[in-house]
Amino acid sequence: MDGPLLLIDRSLGRGVVAQLIDGLRRGILDGALRAGDPVPSTRALAGELGIARSSVVAAYEQLAGEGYLELRQGATTRVAALDALGALTRDPANDAARRGATGVTGEVPLAAIDLSPGVPSTARLDERAWRAAWRSVGTSPPPSTSPPPFGLPELRVAIAQHLRHARGVACSPDDVVVTAGTSEALALTGLGLRTVAGGSPRIGVEDPGYPGGRRALQLHGAELVPLPLAAGGLDVAALADTDALAGTDALAGTGGLDAVMVTPSHQYPLGGRLPVAERLALLEWARASGAIVVEDDYDSEFRHTGAPLPALASLDAGERVVLVGSFSKVLTPWLRLGYLVLPRHPGLRDAVTAARTDLDSPVAGPVQLAMARLLTSGTLRRHIAATRREYRHRRGLVLDALAPLQHVGARLRALEGGLHAVLELPDADAEARLVARLEAEGIVVAPLALYAVASGSGSGAGRPAGIVIGYAGVGDLALSTALDRIATLTRAVLAAATGGPEFSTPAIAVGTEGRSPG
Amino acid sequence: MDGPLLLIDRSLGRGVVAQLIDGLRRGILDGALRAGDPVPSTRALAGELGIARSSVVAAYEQLAGEGYLELRQGATTRVAALDALGALTRDPANDAARRGATGVTGEVPLAAIDLSPGVPSTARLDERAWRAAWRSVGTSPPPSTSPPPFGLPELRVAIAQHLRHARGVACSPDDVVVTAGTSEALALTGLGLRTVAGGSPRIGVEDPGYPGGRRALQLHGAELVPLPLAAGGLDVAALADTDALAGTDALAGTGGLDAVMVTPSHQYPLGGRLPVAERLALLEWARASGAIVVEDDYDSEFRHTGAPLPALASLDAGERVVLVGSFSKVLTPWLRLGYLVLPRHPGLRDAVTAARTDLDSPVAGPVQLAMARLLTSGTLRRHIAATRREYRHRRGLVLDALAPLQHVGARLRALEGGLHAVLELPDADAEARLVARLEAEGIVVAPLALYAVASGSGSGAGRPAGIVIGYAGVGDLALSTALDRIATLTRAVLAAATGGPEFSTPAIAVGTEGRSPG
Repeated sequence: MDGPLLLIDRSLGRGVVAQLIDGLRRGILDGALRAGDPVPSTRALAGELGIARSSVVAAYEQLAGEGYLELRQGATTRVAALDALGALTRDPANDAARRGATGVTGEVPLAAIDLSPGVPSTARLDERAWRAAWRSVGTSPPPSTSPPPFGLPELRVAIAQHLRHARGVACSPDDVVVTAGTSEALALTGLGLRTVAGGSPRIGVEDPGYPGGRRALQLHGAELVPLPLAAGGLDVAALADTDALAGTDALAGTGGLDAVMVTPSHQYPLGGRLPVAERLALLEWARASGAIVVEDDYDSEFRHTGAPLPALASLDAGERVVLVGSFSKVLTPWLRLGYLVLPRHPGLRDAVTAARTDLDSPVAGPVQLAMARLLTSGTLRRHIAATRREYRHRRGLVLDALAPLQHVGARLRALEGGLHAVLELPDADAEARLVARLEAEGIVVAPLALYAVASGSGSGAGRPAGIVIGYAGVGDLALSTALDRIATLTRAVLAAATGGPEFSTPAIAVGTEGRSPG
Repeated sequence: MDGPLLLIDRSLGRGVVAQLIDGLRRGILDGALRAGDPVPSTRALAGELGIARSSVVAAYEQLAGEGYLELRQGATTRVAALDALGALTRDPANDAARRGATGVTGEVPLAAIDLSPGVPSTARLDERAWRAAWRSVGTSPPPSTSPPPFGLPELRVAIAQHLRHARGVACSPDDVVVTAGTSEALALTGLGLRTVAGGSPRIGVEDPGYPGGRRALQLHGAELVPLPLAAGGLDVAALADTDALAGTDALAGTGGLDAVMVTPSHQYPLGGRLPVAERLALLEWARASGAIVVEDDYDSEFRHTGAPLPALASLDAGERVVLVGSFSKVLTPWLRLGYLVLPRHPGLRDAVTAARTDLDSPVAGPVQLAMARLLTSGTLRRHIAATRREYRHRRGLVLDALAPLQHVGARLRALEGGLHAVLELPDADAEARLVARLEAEGIVVAPLALYAVASGSGSGAGRPAGIVIGYAGVGDLALSTALDRIATLTRAVLAAATGGPEFSTPAIAVGTEGRSPG
């Protein structure tokens, strides 16, 4: 291990642990430390550097959590052999060097780094609590009946408590419906709205917005009406202005909306938080027009800048906002577990109750029991706190790597919370070329084209263009590798497109107050 | 313990164990043995009766499995204190005596015996294997992604294998879609049929038939057409005869059917098995008319009389039959786990694939892993074998108690397989009165009215009348108690209705070849 990597400078005003982590991480990324290399024992390194052994332990643990080191009980700690490093071999210039660095010889299969949005990290999950939750599920033979249509009482109580703490929503367990993830929650809402509307409901959706949510509503009979966005999310003024809406094809010559589906806490995918004044205006519009508001609160537990706003549902006092949430982002979509919080609105409530009773709950009893245990034991709360720190750190990596691209006309957005960032590009052509070049290097991102409502509108002129980058589900090393390639290829694509000069419009500011220290 | 209960008569030609079981069971049912009473040790009783101790052990174990005795490692074996006995206190004449017999003093809350159909027994489940299956689910942290839309490969392989063995269906794992029970399987089928039909599909359904299945299809856009039944289930000749169908309201002036939903292995709820000739005619009709056949194979693993026929899907060679199955009857609806087997039919297959991909699987990964383990370890196969014996025994209790009612005009049906029986009554009026009187005594059964398609047709004249009795999910003691009351009240209701004379039409014969020896 080379000296320069690990010089600890106490005059820097940075903690010893942070310096140690930075030095080791840089050594691995630079190839000075190779996959499989042993690192010194904590005792030896502490003695060598003249620092406390606990500092070395803390640094190793952090780096293991980030995926750089392999830490095993009773075995030598080593530099991790990450498949993701294989992606580096796609750059011919680096090929030989990187192969050496990763210890791979001969032909290497294309290793993908998947930055698809919506993939959380489960690496820090408390394995003991997870194991205990599932073990407890099997301790007695199962009942002979289906779980109740709205879910097991203990889980509904735990979810109501979680929402009170995490989202400021004062709901009763009676308002909670346990669902098989967000899709099933929206399907059920769609079935309920069809009954309320007495036919195919007309539902306004943000454009761009969550394509899976739109498809779930459409498959269950809804007619979708795209709604324009403003700076903080939905353009509420345009919503209230029927003339503006009548100008769109979808509304030509027809009546009002039965419902709108919104992401006020963190517009999906572009980012932005709906200000309080707009929230009140939205609720006022809904009250006046008789519409239901479906609030998709998909990742609000993770707020990186500024104070989180309570859910829109908390302003509504249970009158006409349906809150849709899930455990897909805060834990994992592997469980297919989510929930609805129903407002008092009697028509909708009766219709959802009838549909759910007719169909039975799709959520297995053991899954409900295990999640109730993870909630009441505090495991999920601690997991959210731990992953929030992890995601803030990764968000810092994204900012470091991609914020400088504003000088070539690519803007970072959506970083105020959640698990993804948007790199906005000047046009759909640049988007398509960047996505194709990344794909050729084994790096998967989502083009913004996927989120636009009117996907058939020719060249996509007028819609926001860019890529959506999920930064939560991969280790730091894979993320850094991919971000490096994204930065390089974005410069190449934009240089080819514009001949090199910078964009003339000002870049959108990205706050950095949420940066993690690491 | 009184002598007469336990006289073993070797000249009877019945086994010692069977006589012992009968004697003890009768003693408990008659109140000679009371809840909480200790029974003699196996050694003492064997000595007293001059039989092998292993015979006493076998008898005690059988009675414990049936719910009569409480058998605990290292503790005295006692007569079980069954809540179900409380239901007896509803008969004022028996009140004091039964309270004494159950050891209950003072006011007793109404204890219901729930004979709702569709509730299996989980009492004999291999607890060790169940525990191991869930423990294995928690051994590693969960993935960060949803399970694949059609299910985990290991479960799809295991289901295909199960179907080959249990139902004679030679399908590939690629044809299997893991679903959240039958309702979700039918919902998905309904969405697929809507795409194939290019609008609301017209689906023929058996009348009477499975109401939950009808509602799942209707909620997902289907228009239902009731189809008449013949002796073995669906009246296929009437189906092919468009004139006959045109006579019904639903088909007046409209075109053909896009699909039919059938229960050929065991018509639900009336019983009967569609003969092979009718099956071939049904497939021929479907081929000629371009319709899809949805086979609801809900309880075919349990056949009590005659050889089981392979699933209809096995005759079709994967062309146009969708097989719908679930683990609700063979294990428990608590898991909300079922499956579809898709035919090659490209339009339907593409449509189901698209809908499932859009919505994501609703089935949690851990549930899929646990079920794959229960299937591949043979646990489910052994459980089916054990519960089949248990259900045959209970079916025998139903026959003993209710077959004599044919002399007063009530006919037993549907006993050739499955988990339920139908006691057919002369008219809807007798049905309503019997259900009300049973309910007043805390005994829950399902009236046949629930199964009729046209529930709004006034007095229900013309439809089959009677009650559906689920005999699988309760212990022998509760079942015997309830059957006794059903027999008594049926006689009372029919005597009041007809002035006492027997029905003139011949009763439908019920085979007894499937009787269990116990």
